[in-house]
Amino acid sequence: MDDYERPLFFHMMEYAAEADRDVVDMVSGNPDWEPPTALRDGLKAYADGDVETFQYPPSQGLFELRSAIADRRGVDIERVVITNGAGEANYLAMATALEAFDGEEILMVDPVYPYYANRTEMLDATPQFVDSKPDGTVDPAAVRERASEGTAAIIVNSPNNPTGGVYGRETKRELVAIAEEHDALLLSDEVYERFVYEDGAFETALSFDSGNTVVTNSFSKSMAITGLRVGYGIYPERLTDAVRTRHMLVNVAGSRPAQQAVLEALRETPETYYKRNRRLLGERVDTFCSALNAAGVEYTRPQGGFYVMARFDGYPGTLENAERLIDEAGVAGMPGNAFGESRTEWLRFALVTPRVEEAARRLSAYLE
Amino acid sequence: MDDYERPLFFHMMEYAAEADRDVVDMVSGNPDWEPPTALRDGLKAYADGDVETFQYPPSQGLFELRSAIADRRGVDIERVVITNGAGEANYLAMATALEAFDGEEILMVDPVYPYYANRTEMLDATPQFVDSKPDGTVDPAAVRERASEGTAAIIVNSPNNPTGGVYGRETKRELVAIAEEHDALLLSDEVYERFVYEDGAFETALSFDSGNTVVTNSFSKSMAITGLRVGYGIYPERLTDAVRTRHMLVNVAGSRPAQQAVLEALRETPETYYKRNRRLLGERVDTFCSALNAAGVEYTRPQGGFYVMARFDGYPGTLENAERLIDEAGVAGMPGNAFGESRTEWLRFALVTPRVEEAARRLSAYLE
Repeated sequence: MDDYERPLFFHMMEYAAEADRDVVDMVSGNPDWEPPTALRDGLKAYADGDVETFQYPPSQGLFELRSAIADRRGVDIERVVITNGAGEANYLAMATALEAFDGEEILMVDPVYPYYANRTEMLDATPQFVDSKPDGTVDPAAVRERASEGTAAIIVNSPNNPTGGVYGRETKRELVAIAEEHDALLLSDEVYERFVYEDGAFETALSFDSGNTVVTNSFSKSMAITGLRVGYGIYPERLTDAVRTRHMLVNVAGSRPAQQAVLEALRETPETYYKRNRRLLGERVDTFCSALNAAGVEYTRPQGGFYVMARFDGYPGTLENAERLIDEAGVAGMPGNAFGESRTEWLRFALVTPRVEEAARRLSAYLE
Repeated sequence: MDDYERPLFFHMMEYAAEADRDVVDMVSGNPDWEPPTALRDGLKAYADGDVETFQYPPSQGLFELRSAIADRRGVDIERVVITNGAGEANYLAMATALEAFDGEEILMVDPVYPYYANRTEMLDATPQFVDSKPDGTVDPAAVRERASEGTAAIIVNSPNNPTGGVYGRETKRELVAIAEEHDALLLSDEVYERFVYEDGAFETALSFDSGNTVVTNSFSKSMAITGLRVGYGIYPERLTDAVRTRHMLVNVAGSRPAQQAVLEALRETPETYYKRNRRLLGERVDTFCSALNAAGVEYTRPQGGFYVMARFDGYPGTLENAERLIDEAGVAGMPGNAFGESRTEWLRFALVTPRVEEAARRLSAYLE
């Protein structure tokens, strides 16, 4: 099993922290904005609960939380399983898909969120890659061409990490159809759903009624709480028994204070909270991209999410170059070769700092 | 994969809750005593932390928590991984043992904690069973006889759920030796370690310096917080890389508020907290067993943990009889056949209620 993401992410963050100069850290996807007030309040209220509330929640998650999610998504509550972040929700989908659907290959888009590929290998399956389009989305025709009898699952992530591409309605419809044609599972990871900068650009895979679709999501990004580990999967009936059993045998249950706090935050947080954060990130996108543009740097403007990929002439996205950027420009990003084969010339910058303009200035001054 | 525990546990708890009469609930292992005050305080302090503290903890767990555990257990911190309860710690040990050690069988003791057997089947391995002795411990000679070239791991749980047996120093030494002889992993699940009623009866598998031993534990029982999901494994060097990678690819990381609260509780909770709870449980053991004894009922007095197995003449431990006991005696326990083949005549009662004397009175009145 190739274990490239963990060392690289940690390595880059450590390298940036140990640098002998001021560094704008744009390595990780850790939000730097405030969680909802109701989330903090929910944790405090939980801390005062009686003894019973400190004991096992239902393995599938707190009923009220599953119910709130089912209502919001318009699905049967039986399809909803609360997981230890979207990471576990994706793991459960992939592991059970390999058992329930024919095939031993999992199709994914390059550049790829490295966990998808590593997890596929951990499950003794074979990752297959389709290159994304220059705008960071995917051409369904390319997916159809690559899909085969051996395809057990197709993984897509929109808004996309690392490209910022957002897959629209027709793309999603086609992907669902391809999964159905090949008796495969379409795993649609929608964790950046709250960060779409153009109304109507995003479409959830739930819009197409299909027994071949799993949608995973989490509150990590939408509530700025990557450390609480509360995510969920909405699984098709064909997988729910296997998913619940595997979740129970791996984790028994998720952490209850985190689930309770998220439930309170879901109930009490006004829509303005999400809008404000989307606006904040949208402004950072504008600022960072404008500065790159003014400097004549090639970049992909994200339609969603909070990552920007940029390419500098004669400066490929290697580990060595990412380190040099820290030492000599004072900006930390991720080398593009951490995300597969198709963007090895690029670097990825996470907009999780207010200093994006300063970062762009440093980059252009250093690289011009 | 046989999925007998979840439905049975849930079924029994639901059946008891829906009964048309007062029922003493002795089904689950959910503590009914107070968590440490410092744990509640730790959660509240966490809730007031800055944005960064709401983001991903290190995948292996908070450094200070790993460090506190390593100090207490006298092991290298590199061996300690914080997990989503002992359940995940056991899963990681079993999954990685099947890759790193020869063999596709996992040896365990009957009666068995059902998760061990179900998880073995989920991992496409074969569970093998050795019967425990009447006192609820195991004879190492019986384990040695059963172990073979095909044995990848041996799982023991002491103090034992469900028998209450505590494995002493010589037994543990022998089990470590058997694992070494067969190039297998000894997985020693020690979650009830804080509930031993005779000084010196318990010995941790860490006492024997071996590259073939994993010790798993959690704070679920010792701090009465089964819902927080904070456990850990102390893995041999041979497994640490694989364990960390698998943990990351399945869960990314554990829930940070729970880890932070446990860390505060570990630092601030006096030894008297643990002593008081052990005394409370010891008194319940005395009370319940004395009452069973006075009624002429056959039972196993636990040397540790908080479960009592009892056998009633002509009343085997079937689901049907456990339900009848709820309806007609007002006492809810677990049928012995949930724990394998060797105790199908027995029922298991969890001492997680102050009403143990009342329960024993009801049982003897009904069954005499």
